[in-house]
This record gives sequence, structure tokens and C-alpha cells, in this order.
Amino acid sequence: MKTRLERIQQDLENLQQFNATPEKGLTRFSLTEEDRGAREYLRGELKKLGLEVYEDPAGSLFGRREGTEDLPAIVIGSHFDSVKNGGHFDGPAGVIMALEIMRTLKDQGVKTRYPIEFIAMIEEEGGRFGSGVFGSRAMAGLVDYDQLLQRKDADGVSMAEAFEAFGFNPKEIAKARRTKDQVKAFIELHIEQGPILESGHKDVGIVEFIVGITQLKVVVRGRPDHAGTTPMAMRADPLVVASKVIARIPEFPAAENNGSVATVGVLEVKPGASNIVPESVTLTVDIRSKNQESIDRIIEKITIALDEASKDSKVSYETEILLGVKPVPMAPAIVDILKDKAQALGFSYEMMLSGAGHDAMIMGLFTDVGLIFVPSLDGRSHCPEEWTDYDQLQKGIEVIYETILQLGEAVQ
Amino acid sequence: MKTRLERIQQDLENLQQFNATPEKGLTRFSLTEEDRGAREYLRGELKKLGLEVYEDPAGSLFGRREGTEDLPAIVIGSHFDSVKNGGHFDGPAGVIMALEIMRTLKDQGVKTRYPIEFIAMIEEEGGRFGSGVFGSRAMAGLVDYDQLLQRKDADGVSMAEAFEAFGFNPKEIAKARRTKDQVKAFIELHIEQGPILESGHKDVGIVEFIVGITQLKVVVRGRPDHAGTTPMAMRADPLVVASKVIARIPEFPAAENNGSVATVGVLEVKPGASNIVPESVTLTVDIRSKNQESIDRIIEKITIALDEASKDSKVSYETEILLGVKPVPMAPAIVDILKDKAQALGFSYEMMLSGAGHDAMIMGLFTDVGLIFVPSLDGRSHCPEEWTDYDQLQKGIEVIYETILQLGEAVQ
Repeated sequence: MKTRLERIQQDLENLQQFNATPEKGLTRFSLTEEDRGAREYLRGELKKLGLEVYEDPAGSLFGRREGTEDLPAIVIGSHFDSVKNGGHFDGPAGVIMALEIMRTLKDQGVKTRYPIEFIAMIEEEGGRFGSGVFGSRAMAGLVDYDQLLQRKDADGVSMAEAFEAFGFNPKEIAKARRTKDQVKAFIELHIEQGPILESGHKDVGIVEFIVGITQLKVVVRGRPDHAGTTPMAMRADPLVVASKVIARIPEFPAAENNGSVATVGVLEVKPGASNIVPESVTLTVDIRSKNQESIDRIIEKITIALDEASKDSKVSYETEILLGVKPVPMAPAIVDILKDKAQALGFSYEMMLSGAGHDAMIMGLFTDVGLIFVPSLDGRSHCPEEWTDYDQLQKGIEVIYETILQLGEAVQ
Repeated sequence: MKTRLERIQQDLENLQQFNATPEKGLTRFSLTEEDRGAREYLRGELKKLGLEVYEDPAGSLFGRREGTEDLPAIVIGSHFDSVKNGGHFDGPAGVIMALEIMRTLKDQGVKTRYPIEFIAMIEEEGGRFGSGVFGSRAMAGLVDYDQLLQRKDADGVSMAEAFEAFGFNPKEIAKARRTKDQVKAFIELHIEQGPILESGHKDVGIVEFIVGITQLKVVVRGRPDHAGTTPMAMRADPLVVASKVIARIPEFPAAENNGSVATVGVLEVKPGASNIVPESVTLTVDIRSKNQESIDRIIEKITIALDEASKDSKVSYETEILLGVKPVPMAPAIVDILKDKAQALGFSYEMMLSGAGHDAMIMGLFTDVGLIFVPSLDGRSHCPEEWTDYDQLQKGIEVIYETILQLGEAVQ
């Protein structure tokens, strides 16, 4: 019989085959041939374990193991879709966690009071339809048939059409909804996608909050003068004003001293000619924190910085909040159990924030959630170089396995 | 008989007809139907004055008025091509100056020791072939047949083909060259394309230097981390570093206190996603000054600022000089005459730099040059809104007319 490490490796390598871009990272969009292949592989593995295998109307794959009592299920897993040319761990690591735990429960002949369900979730990345955390949103009751008609992929195929072509009935999408009565808890494992565990030499990360995200759009407007003929003192240069603000932005989250971050990743200068003083600069500030108050304070400081940088000039600005998602706390009781189990197993751990959104964030809208991170090599993700050592992944799985035994109330 | 002001207006309005984009500013590219129309209009006006009308092999149009002696000519004029959707004054104002002066010399029965030549120059803007100050470069001996074969317009037509189709012999291009023995001086009138004369309520600008231009390309490189999962202290953000430098750039030319300017007009952020810390920032700094030492010092200060902003970080940078043109002084003797004449006429004037390049810059390579600016409404140019009042243009013409009488040594 194979070791757990060998099984993890084999599952990962088997799933890697279902890939639209071999040699160029993983591309597995939802409701495609690659989706079908991965889904059938997982279905086969679940069936070998004697589980009740089914799909919900949103296309997520489940494998259910009944409890000794008729109680809400504990759901474990993550998503199995990927971004374009992404890595083999973002999503699949958590799916394999769930598969391996279901295997171990069977191998050990464990019985639990609560049912345990494996889940492989659909369309978390939104790579095909631009509709991220779709599987979890459907379970939270946030998706309706109209949305399936409206969302289209790059070829103009609607989600409704794609679901139908795949064998699902999109009109039943609302039936994907679950409640706290049905789901006692959701526990996810995911790669960190950041450098903290690796640089701190920690085995696992125990997430306390998934951060809130606000995207602030800033447009700074000046006057497009000739770069040769307009004296410095007579200019209204929006790029100089924007630069004064961007140079200061890192101070603002740092002052919160709670892991808040702020990033300018998009900046467009118009008209964008070397001999013309810019007319306008458009930029986005991505602000994330476990405290909404921190986010609000960072926005306020950015606004004050814009006021200061543009005063005494003919430069003006406007701001707009493009996206605002509030921070989501993980269930403290689950966080405590995860921490206890990591300690009991002798693993080092870091209490941390998730700076990226995950299905757990949405599942947290209707049930208790827990989220474990495993280290990312060089902090990288969404690229072919994405990597987590198999033994690191195994440690995360072991923490969740022990947690499931306790939370599911193993009776034997 | 019409007044000078009426003639100026009529010439401008007549030239405006030869335009590929009526209602959307002036588009008159070289060797097109619009070029032909403007050229034939000017040819007709010059012939009415009994001048010897000819074109050089580069396609510039001349109207020569002999002197009383066999001496080098004084050439006056500017270019008659435009940018795409430009204005009606950038170029034509100086052509009409020359036409009106030739008319007045005839009307007044003036004789000069030196020949006087009208010139309407081709392809100064480079709108069609991307080959700016072409007419003056040909006169300076800087153009050969090979260049005509290589330079192509957006439709793939080479300059050589266009010249031939227009009736010129492109193989004779080298014969466009003139020397100091043939050209005693070149005097140009141009719109300012900047706000100085208008804001200072000055009638004319007397240019002392056409500034030197250096374009510095700067690439700042960091690491493309996830904007949510990478703590502020672990980032290598090239946009923050670049912003610290751009925010300071205006100080550097201001410290020179001699009209130097520096502009960042192009800035590109890669990969340019709101949730990714930028990997690289590429920008250009356009630096102009009458002193090459000032340009060199500004570049040095930018480099020091880059060092300071990137030290203690994993951000690196590299710089490259894309374009370096040294400052060109106008001939001091001509500057003095222009100044005397403006004073004698009771016009207010400003001694100034030309921050933009002009044909005078190239003509200065082989002869003495003078350049007069007339005010630009709101400092604007290269747009349909470009405007100079006719009486403002007239004042510039009068200053040059008086200058020509002295420089050409009017004998009657």
C-alpha cells in the first residue's frame, strides 16, 4: 500500500493531465473537456471509497460519507478550476486534501456523528466566465438563472448554455443553495500565495480573517501642455501630483500595524506622449485589511494626500470605490481546534490573514468556516512556477484530518 | 487695396482650404493633394509678385527676389505641412509672413543689396513619413537617396516613390543642399506653442536659443507579487520607487533657474493588474534646456534620486538616453536687430527659448538664424483650437520686415 505522501503525489500528477496548456502551467476552465476529465478522475476515486457521489446544480462535485446521526455535514475541499496558465496547486491542493481525508477515514474505519462531505468546487477563479467564487456563491444562494444567461465566456457562450451542454439543468441553479442546517462547517486548505510561511519557516498558516478588499479608482486631471514650451511653474501636471501620493501610500497601511496592505497596480497616463505634459492619470488602489476601519482610514489618508499634493495647482481629482468587500472572520471555535491540532502534531504555525479571496469567504456567509494555508515557494501563484512541497501539503492535510475527527465527533 | 491685416486673413483662409480633415483641424501631409493645393496657391501668389519661383529637390517652394548685387540670399519663411488634426497657424503663420514681406517689398519698390527668398518648407512635422524637419535637413545636406527609399508612410509608400509620383526626381535629393555662401541668413516666424507671451501680455518673442533635448528612458524593476498576500515590508514595488523620483523631478529643472524643463509624459506599468504589485515601470523623461550642462545636471539628479529611492530595496533600475540634441543658439547679431526693430516699432517683447524644435534649428547648422514667436491662445498648438489673432501675427511680420530691410541692406 502506498504512503500518504505517495498518494498525494499521485493525485496531483493525475489531476495535472487535465490541462489545456501542458508545458505552460495549468489552464483548466469550468465546463470544458479539462473540467470533465478532472471531474471524472475525482468521481472515480470517490466511488472507490464507497461514497455517495453527486453534483449540485452549480456543477460542484460532492462525495458524501454519512454520519452515525442525521446531522448537518462538515464539508471539506476547495476548487478544481484554474486561471489561464496558472499553477497545479491553487485549488487542487485543497481538493486532494479532502480526497485524502476521505480515504483515511475509510482506511481507519472511522465513524463520525456528523456526515463528512468532500467537495471539488467549480469556477472559483472565474477564468472562463469572469464569475469568481461561483460554486460557493451558488451554495450561499447568491446566484440565479438570470445571471447564468448574462455571463458569457470569450466566445459568447453563456453560462446557461455551457451548463446545459455539460448535462446540467441551469434552471435549477437556485437549488444549489445550502443552509447552516445542512452544513455544520466548511474547512478549506489552500496554498498561501504569499511569502510569509516560507520566510518564517512555518509549516502551516491558520487563517483568522479573510481580509476585506476595497478598490479605489483615482482619476487625476491636469492640462496637456507641450513639454518643451510650457514653463515648469505654469503646468498642471497630474502625474507629478499622483506620484506624490503613490510615494506615500505604503505609509498608510503600515501605520495600521495589523497586516493591512495597499497597492497601486494599474496606472494609465494620457495622452502618453513623451513630449506632452499628461492630461490625466487614472490609477487603482487595492486596499486590504482584516479591519474595515483600517480600510476606511487608509482611504481617508489617500484623500488627504491627494488634497495636499493638488492644492495650489490646477490639478483636480476624483475618486470612486469600484469594489468593496468587508473582512470575513473565520469561526473562532474552528480556528482554536486547528491551532490545537497543529500544536499536538508538533507543527509550527502562523496565525495569519488571507489577503486573497477564497471560497471560504463566501461559505462564511452561511456557515462556520476554517482555512489552512500551506507554504508557497517564493510566495508565487497563478503562474507555472507555483509550487508546494508534497510533505508541506501533507502537514496541512494532517491538521485538517485531526480537526475533522474532533469536529465531526469521531465515535470510534 | 486691402490692408495688411486683410491680406493676412485672406492668405490664412485661402490656405485653410487645402485640408484633409475640414471641421477637425488642419491635416496637410506632404506630397498629397492638400500639399499640391497649398503649393499651387502659394506659387500663384509668388508669381503675381514677379518672383522667380522654383522648388528644390526636397520639395520646398521658393520665391526669389534678386538683390542689387550677387550675394548670398536672406531666406524667410516656415513650413506648410501640418500634424494630423492640427491647427492652421503652426507653419502657415511663418509662410504667410514671408509672402506678405515679399508683397510689401514689391509694393514699396524696395531694392536690397542681398537677394531675399521666400520659402515654404516641406515635411517639418513629419506627419506623413515620420521624418521631421525634412526640408531644412535636406538644405543642411543631411538627407540622401537611401533615406528616401527607407522612409515609408502608413500605406507603405516610400518617400522616394511619393516624390516621383509628385513629379520630383528623388535621386537628386542631395542637390537640395545649401551653404553659407548661398544663404546669408534664415529668419523664421512661428507660433509660440506655449503660454509665455499670452500670460505676459507680450507682442512678440525673440528666441535666443532653441533648447537642447534629451530623452531619458528609465526602467525600474521589482517583483510582481500578489497585492493581497504580500506584506508591505516584503515587497519590491517599482512604482513606489518611480513615484518618489517623479514627485521630485520638477525641482531639478527649477533649480537651474534658466527656463529648463523636465517632463514625464510616458509611463507604463507591467503587468498592470489591480491585484498585482507591479513588476516593472518604464518611463521617459523629456529634458530641455538652453544649456547642455543643465541637461547633464538634471540627468545626474534623477540618477541620484533613483539611487536614493531604490536603496534598501530589491528594486533596481536602468537608464538609457534615447535622443540627445544639443541647444542651438540663434545668431546674436540677428537677435540684436530683431530686438531693436521690436523696440523701434513700440512692440513689447520677451527674450525667450524655443522649447520645441523648428526648421531654424537645422538651418542654424549652416547659416545664421533668427526666430520670432507670436502668441498662442491658451498656449495651445497641434490641435484644432490653435489660434493667433491676425493683428498679433501682423506685429511679428512687421518686426521681420524691418529686420530684412536692415539685414538685406535696402538701398532705397
